[in-house]
Amino acid sequence: MEGQLAHIGAGIAGLGTGIAALGVGNVAANYLAGALRNPSAAASQTATLFIGIAFAEALGIFSFLIALLLMFAV
Amino acid sequence: MEGQLAHIGAGIAGLGTGIAALGVGNVAANYLAGALRNPSAAASQTATLFIGIAFAEALGIFSFLIALLLMFAV
Amino acid sequence: MEGQLAHIGAGIAGLGTGIAALGVGNVAANYLAGALRNPSAAASQTATLFIGIAFAEALGIFSFLIALLLMFAV
Repeated sequence: MEGQLAHIGAGIAGLGTGIAALGVGNVAANYLAGALRNPSAAASQTATLFIGIAFAEALGIFSFLIALLLMFAV
Repeated sequence: MEGQLAHIGAGIAGLGTGIAALGVGNVAANYLAGALRNPSAAASQTATLFIGIAFAEALGIFSFLIALLLMFAV
Repeated sequence: MEGQLAHIGAGIAGLGTGIAALGVGNVAANYLAGALRNPSAAASQTATLFIGIAFAEALGIFSFLIALLLMFAV
């Protein structure tokens, strides 16, 4: 069992990576709901869509990074 | 029990892969709700639909990748 | 198994990093929903959007920091 407990930690961090997809999906879902209700304003909020996706995705990638570090760096 | 704890981690990461489907499903669900309410605007948001799905799916695939790495690479 | 329990803790902190993406996504999602319903007021709330994202993102980064400290500093 030498050094294997970090692999459980990597799996739990991978769970966090998947959960972050809920946040990213929520941003895109609300953009689509609003853009289909009011298509003329959709273009003006495209930048905000990508900003919101980027910040939420960043946390998911941090979680992925923790899993990679736990598997290969510690 | 040599090397087996990584398999628990792989299972937990697989749980994250499944949870990411909620985020992807939320994007597609809101697109469908809006597109069926306002079909004339649906074509203009198809690109956004795929962008939203891609970003949420990416996190689920990262989680799947962690599970694969835990099973076969560590 | 020397020093390995901290790695499970790091994984759990990585789970928290992913969950913080839910909060960030919720802020951006509600901004987009409101801005697409009332586009003329969207510009006046851009600062609030970034304030909300920043405070939620900060907690995710704190969680990421805990994971890094557990892996490399303790």
